[in-house]
Amino acid sequence: MMKIDILTLFPEMFAPLEHSIVGKAKEKGLLDITYHNFRENAEKARHVDDEPYGGGQGMLLRAQPIFDTIDKIDAKKPRVILLDPAGRTFDQSYAEELAAEEELIFICGHYEGYDERIKTLVTDEISLGDFVLTGGELAAMTMVDATVRLIPDVIGKEASHQDDSFSSGLLEYPQYTRPYEYRGMTVPDVLMSGHHENIRRWRLEKSLRKTLERRPDLLDAYDFSEEEAQLLEKIKKEG
Amino acid sequence: MMKIDILTLFPEMFAPLEHSIVGKAKEKGLLDITYHNFRENAEKARHVDDEPYGGGQGMLLRAQPIFDTIDKIDAKKPRVILLDPAGRTFDQSYAEELAAEEELIFICGHYEGYDERIKTLVTDEISLGDFVLTGGELAAMTMVDATVRLIPDVIGKEASHQDDSFSSGLLEYPQYTRPYEYRGMTVPDVLMSGHHENIRRWRLEKSLRKTLERRPDLLDAYDFSEEEAQLLEKIKKEG
Repeated sequence: MMKIDILTLFPEMFAPLEHSIVGKAKEKGLLDITYHNFRENAEKARHVDDEPYGGGQGMLLRAQPIFDTIDKIDAKKPRVILLDPAGRTFDQSYAEELAAEEELIFICGHYEGYDERIKTLVTDEISLGDFVLTGGELAAMTMVDATVRLIPDVIGKEASHQDDSFSSGLLEYPQYTRPYEYRGMTVPDVLMSGHHENIRRWRLEKSLRKTLERRPDLLDAYDFSEEEAQLLEKIKKEG
Repeated sequence: MMKIDILTLFPEMFAPLEHSIVGKAKEKGLLDITYHNFRENAEKARHVDDEPYGGGQGMLLRAQPIFDTIDKIDAKKPRVILLDPAGRTFDQSYAEELAAEEELIFICGHYEGYDERIKTLVTDEISLGDFVLTGGELAAMTMVDATVRLIPDVIGKEASHQDDSFSSGLLEYPQYTRPYEYRGMTVPDVLMSGHHENIRRWRLEKSLRKTLERRPDLLDAYDFSEEEAQLLEKIKKEG
C-alpha cells in the first residue's frame, strides 16, 4: 500500500481527489492518504508565515511548523516533495518514478515563498510547469492523481492506461462514437468498414501524423517498430 | 468582468477554487464563473459516453451533450478550451493571453477521449503537461487559478505577482524568515546587514546562478540589463 502525507494550510481543498482515482485507490485498500494542516503545529498563536530577512514584499512560510509536522509523520524513507517553480518539471516518467515509491510527502506552500531551510528536508523539488499558481495545492492534487493511477491494480481493464498518450509515446488518433451523423458531420468510412487491419493502420498513421505535426520532440524518444518507421517515412514524403 | 463557463461531469470537484484566488476575484466582482454539468443536457437517459466506432477499449464523450450545453451558454466571442494531451502546453504566457479575454469556456473530458467532432467547437486545445490525468478537472482548475490571478486588481499589493519566477523571467533567490537560527541553521550574514545595495546584488546573483544551473533555457528568452549581463559573465567564469 502506498502512503501519502500532504502538508497544507488548506486540507479542505483536497476534497475533489475523493471523486478521482484517489477515492477508488483508497476503497481498494491500495492507498493511505493523510492531510496535515501544519498551522496546528505552529508555535506561538498558529504563526506560519513571517517577513523576509533583508526586506522585500510578501510573506514566507516559516521553517518550524513544517519541520515539526514532518517529525510527527510515521515514515521510514519517504520521498519529500516540495512544490517549487524552480524544480524539475513533472511529467509521465516522473509520475512513474513516484508510483514505484512506498511513501510520499508533499509540502504545499502559499504566500511568496519558503524559508530556505525547509529545503534541507526535501528530496525532490518539483514544478508542475512554467506558470505561477496561488498555492501548491492544485499542483499537488494533479501530481497525486497522475501518480496514483499508475499504482498496479488501481485502474481496471475497462480504463487501461496502456493506450494513453505519453504512455504509448504517440499522440492519440481521432476517435468517433454514435451517432454516425451529427450536425452534418459523419464518421470516416474506414471506421465503419469492419476491416480491422485497415482500421489499425489508419489509426497508426493518424497518430504518427499528429505527433509529427504537433510534438515532433516526442518522436525523438520513441522506439519505432519497422512498420511505424516506414509509415513515418511515407508521411514525411507526402508532406 | 471576466466570464468563465466550465463544462464538466463533476461540478463539485471545483469547490477548492473558492478557497483560492478565484473566490477573491468573485467577491471583488471581477469574475463570474459557472459550472455546467453537461449530463443534464444529454438526450436519452443522461447518456454522455459511448463505445468508439472501429472498436477499441474505453468510452468516448459523445458530441451531443457538449454541443447542446455550449448552445445554451450566453457568450459572444469566447475562447473555447479543450483540455487535451495533444494540445499546446500551458505556460505563463498562455495564462497572460487567457487573462486578457472576456469569455472563456473550458471543456473537461473524462473516459478515454472525445468524439472528434467536438473539436469543431474549440478554439484552443491545451495540455497542462506531459502526463496523464484521470480527467480534465484538475487541469482546468490549475489553468483557471493561473489565469484569474493575472486579471488586473485581483491580487493586491501585498501579494504582487511582479516578483514571481516566470513573471520576472529568473528563478527566485533563497529567502529566510525568523528565527535567525533554527535547528543549527542560520541566515546568511548579508541579509542581516541592513545594507540594501549588497542585499539587492546578492539576491540578483543567486537568481542568476540558480537559473543558469537549473533552467538555462529561461536565460535564452531573458532581457538582460547591463548589470545582469556582467554578473552572469562573472558567474560563468567562476564556474
